[in-house]
Amino acid sequence: MAHSELILKEDYDIEFILIETSHPGNIGACARAIKNMGFAKLGLVNPKNFPCDEAYHRSKGAKDILDDANIYKSLDEALSEATLVLGTSARERSIPWPSSYTHLIDEDMSNDIKDKNNKICILFGREDSGLSNDELQKCHMHLRIPCSDEYSSLNISHAVQIISYEFRNLLMREESIEVKSDVPLSTDADNEFLLEHLDKVLLDLNFYDQNSSRQVQARLKRLIKKARPDKLEVGILRGFLTKIQEILNK
Amino acid sequence: MAHSELILKEDYDIEFILIETSHPGNIGACARAIKNMGFAKLGLVNPKNFPCDEAYHRSKGAKDILDDANIYKSLDEALSEATLVLGTSARERSIPWPSSYTHLIDEDMSNDIKDKNNKICILFGREDSGLSNDELQKCHMHLRIPCSDEYSSLNISHAVQIISYEFRNLLMREESIEVKSDVPLSTDADNEFLLEHLDKVLLDLNFYDQNSSRQVQARLKRLIKKARPDKLEVGILRGFLTKIQEILNK
Repeated sequence: MAHSELILKEDYDIEFILIETSHPGNIGACARAIKNMGFAKLGLVNPKNFPCDEAYHRSKGAKDILDDANIYKSLDEALSEATLVLGTSARERSIPWPSSYTHLIDEDMSNDIKDKNNKICILFGREDSGLSNDELQKCHMHLRIPCSDEYSSLNISHAVQIISYEFRNLLMREESIEVKSDVPLSTDADNEFLLEHLDKVLLDLNFYDQNSSRQVQARLKRLIKKARPDKLEVGILRGFLTKIQEILNK
Repeated sequence: MAHSELILKEDYDIEFILIETSHPGNIGACARAIKNMGFAKLGLVNPKNFPCDEAYHRSKGAKDILDDANIYKSLDEALSEATLVLGTSARERSIPWPSSYTHLIDEDMSNDIKDKNNKICILFGREDSGLSNDELQKCHMHLRIPCSDEYSSLNISHAVQIISYEFRNLLMREESIEVKSDVPLSTDADNEFLLEHLDKVLLDLNFYDQNSSRQVQARLKRLIKKARPDKLEVGILRGFLTKIQEILNK
């Protein structure tokens, strides 16, 4: 495990709390989703059926998350130490409350989530009816997952997956992936020599007609820029062009 | 359904393609995830067991997506019309290929996805072994879902959920949610009168001690600013203060 991975578990206190979940399979799928994103704390308020084989089966490699889950008799018990409580929903609720879309969390909220002094609880409601108004009113803020007007009811483990994914992205700065190559990328000079070589061959082949030659040259140039060939690939292409020239000069 | 919703289905041609999926329940959960995010096209390359009751059961309100799914005998058949092919993985693959994390898609890639002339296919591999090297090499780019080094194996429907969520966010501009209130927010003047009123009451109560009064005033001011009360709430607070004054003046 990379050192950076430990940040999410050790530096932050973030608990995903499921309220009165009906299907134990969903609890298992939530445990897996949380662990996939590097989090560890699962809370269950009055689960209908837990512990249960089906939950363990669906959790796959996240059985430890289920073993360590906190089981609460009430939401108040679950939230007793919380300093930041967030409620989640996919639908628009009638109750007026500070709200944000999950992908548009503003700087104030973001700073609050990043504050390592906070104990953060994120609430997920029942499969059929979500969070009650009373539960929603215990939240500092509501997080809304953007979704289709036509069909807005997400599976609870999918809601947990999206929220844990967004929180991971917020708290960890993953380095962007480089375009990997076995050999060094070609330099601009390599590409220019390649294009000159190509141009020469096309002239020798009488490929250009007078009206369109500049446009064709521009397109070939753009193609090479887009392709970003490495040095080996440039070598192969130039070998190919040399071969053509040898045949023309015979 | 809002007009903006139709954009995803009608203006863009984006197909989520599952390759040799083993569990029909996962196919159903993928259909639901796609529909939740406003997409409609599901492709299945050699599904192990489909059509199947379990798939329909898990799809909940997305049975139409399953009815309309394209079933292919080979990946080549599925990709025959594709102009942009994207492969997904949670793990780092050994094969060097242009790659991006799902949450760090750059402008070039983003413009490519937004280009309505493209027929985009997004590939999801088998539950146990993902996409083969041969399949990965059919892609223009690989999308990697950031996840824990400790446990990187996402359920396929959760991977579909994250990708469809990111694509929705990329293609639709959801308006940010306002802090909703039944009544108008208070003005700065309302707040100033409230603070003056409070200050007067606190003086009458001999609440302030000489050393800390300014600090207490500043903190109360900050609290009101943070709370951003609406006109009704200001009214309630001022009524409360008036009540205290009445008692003091008795």
